[in-house]
Amino acid sequence: MLRVPAPDLRAVAQALLRASGVDGGEVEAIADNLLWNDLAGRTNHGVERLPILLRRVQAGLIRTPARMTFRSLSEAAALLDADDGFGQVAGALATDRAVDLARATGLGVVGVQRSNFYGTGAYYINRAAGAGMISIALSNSFPKVAAEGGYRPVLGTNPFAFGAPRRDGRALIVDMSTAGLAGSTVRAHQQDGRDLPEGLVVDEDGRPVTDPDAAMRGTLLPASGPKGFGLALMVEILSGVLTGAGVSSQVASMYKDFERHGNSGHFILALDIARWMPIETFYDRLELLAGMVASSGGEGCVRLPGDARWDAMAENREQGIALEDKTATALRELAGALGTAVPW
Amino acid sequence: MLRVPAPDLRAVAQALLRASGVDGGEVEAIADNLLWNDLAGRTNHGVERLPILLRRVQAGLIRTPARMTFRSLSEAAALLDADDGFGQVAGALATDRAVDLARATGLGVVGVQRSNFYGTGAYYINRAAGAGMISIALSNSFPKVAAEGGYRPVLGTNPFAFGAPRRDGRALIVDMSTAGLAGSTVRAHQQDGRDLPEGLVVDEDGRPVTDPDAAMRGTLLPASGPKGFGLALMVEILSGVLTGAGVSSQVASMYKDFERHGNSGHFILALDIARWMPIETFYDRLELLAGMVASSGGEGCVRLPGDARWDAMAENREQGIALEDKTATALRELAGALGTAVPW
Repeated sequence: MLRVPAPDLRAVAQALLRASGVDGGEVEAIADNLLWNDLAGRTNHGVERLPILLRRVQAGLIRTPARMTFRSLSEAAALLDADDGFGQVAGALATDRAVDLARATGLGVVGVQRSNFYGTGAYYINRAAGAGMISIALSNSFPKVAAEGGYRPVLGTNPFAFGAPRRDGRALIVDMSTAGLAGSTVRAHQQDGRDLPEGLVVDEDGRPVTDPDAAMRGTLLPASGPKGFGLALMVEILSGVLTGAGVSSQVASMYKDFERHGNSGHFILALDIARWMPIETFYDRLELLAGMVASSGGEGCVRLPGDARWDAMAENREQGIALEDKTATALRELAGALGTAVPW
Repeated sequence: MLRVPAPDLRAVAQALLRASGVDGGEVEAIADNLLWNDLAGRTNHGVERLPILLRRVQAGLIRTPARMTFRSLSEAAALLDADDGFGQVAGALATDRAVDLARATGLGVVGVQRSNFYGTGAYYINRAAGAGMISIALSNSFPKVAAEGGYRPVLGTNPFAFGAPRRDGRALIVDMSTAGLAGSTVRAHQQDGRDLPEGLVVDEDGRPVTDPDAAMRGTLLPASGPKGFGLALMVEILSGVLTGAGVSSQVASMYKDFERHGNSGHFILALDIARWMPIETFYDRLELLAGMVASSGGEGCVRLPGDARWDAMAENREQGIALEDKTATALRELAGALGTAVPW
């Protein structure tokens, strides 16, 4: 496995985006998003996605430059029409607007419609945390998950993200698929030829499966049954129904559907901590809780959500980003086809 | 099992509250909350709680009348000091204020500190839905659940509730413990002598148990491991850390701790749908999703969150509320001790 210094990998991402005709004003937002995920060890939401994203650009399914326009809904709420552009661009614009609204009124929310896959919610949570905000980031996605009691896909893996800033800058970040497994986890198991845990996927006829190939053709089950189902519905209602984005089968798969724009929606909510208490008091209180939680198990056994990302980030900044062979090869081939180059 | 007409049971609740010295202005809010839960089939959050609630009143641990005071934090946010009063009273005040804030600015949030157990989030979600609002209701509770990777109790069952109004008035209501099991479920299994499902509880030494007696002495595990842990932390941060309420072991058990006020916190967020689209358009879109979800499994196999409550409500309004024998006996004994009476 290759280790590529982050600035080099960022330059590669930028060059590939530019060579594919992505608007210059959008390149930085997309590259920053992908690189942050690579640095955080979430490589399946990093530069690994460039080939599929750029294939969708070339097919006209992700528009660039997109004319993204905000509509103010109230003092605290706005709606962003993402014009079928990059979800990463829309997500960053929406987060920054939600932060601005929260700064002004204490609380801000931005819905996004006509968007595409926006990556991890964690990226936006961290962005808002940098501004002293607690935030929630939701996005719907194409149907891959069954309802509780059902077996045909009807909800996306509909990730739910929440977070809060901490004094040391390592934000607490909860970011989870509302399915028992993330779609990217199934893909990773398929690529590595590893079986899935039991009880999380059913095949086309509703029978439980652990074979990742069968799972790719089957349907994920919601995490913890009715609980994950309820959360997935919440994500679908807030990011899809309320925003005017696509809902359920109106949202297209980025990997399998080359007939339609993504049509997904997002929902970003920011809350300004400073209205509740001085940020230092909040940090004191959060660290008190963090300490109680950390000491509630064996030495080093309990970690807070986000810790693994920050550890990966420290390691990857120092040693370079670990690039899987298949990703390194795919990017080299893509660079060749676009008349640019990679340094490996 | 007794069936008691709802108006009769409401009158019993009101009489017991009054006879215990609960402030006249608070009686209606408390009785309405308990009765709604009984009607919805959630009897473990209904009048069954009167004996313990009134025992805490008599011990001076729930103050009545409480001098509950709001502090405005911004155009969209407020903090309620519940003065150690009834959680049911504080929850209703907070919900109504969040709705008012949302009506004015599109989005409203109210945090509550110095409160007590507030019942089900579902009650407040339904209250906000009646005003055309999507809402989220969170409350922390005394430590009963382990962190992911830990085995000592450090977080409450920290219920998470979300909901949205539907055209037929039967709001969609997600209301779940972030633990794999609710504390009240363990108690119900203990009372009925039924074993618990596997993998959801550990004993004092971290060993898995299914015996409900051992579970009552042990620690619940979070739902779906890291996912439930992340959600429980979110609930603790928003309803405890941010509001200035107690956090983790600073919150007292209503059943076991007669030394302290409850010191729990709540967090209610309301969002005004009308700012996003006409409510009829929202209903159309939500019913489209509901139809897709309902048809994604076998006939009648998929139900939406909240459906079971509304079915129970229709049945209980018609046939009377099913009162378990132990509850009927406990209320009769309590009435006798207080010099009032029950009609059974």
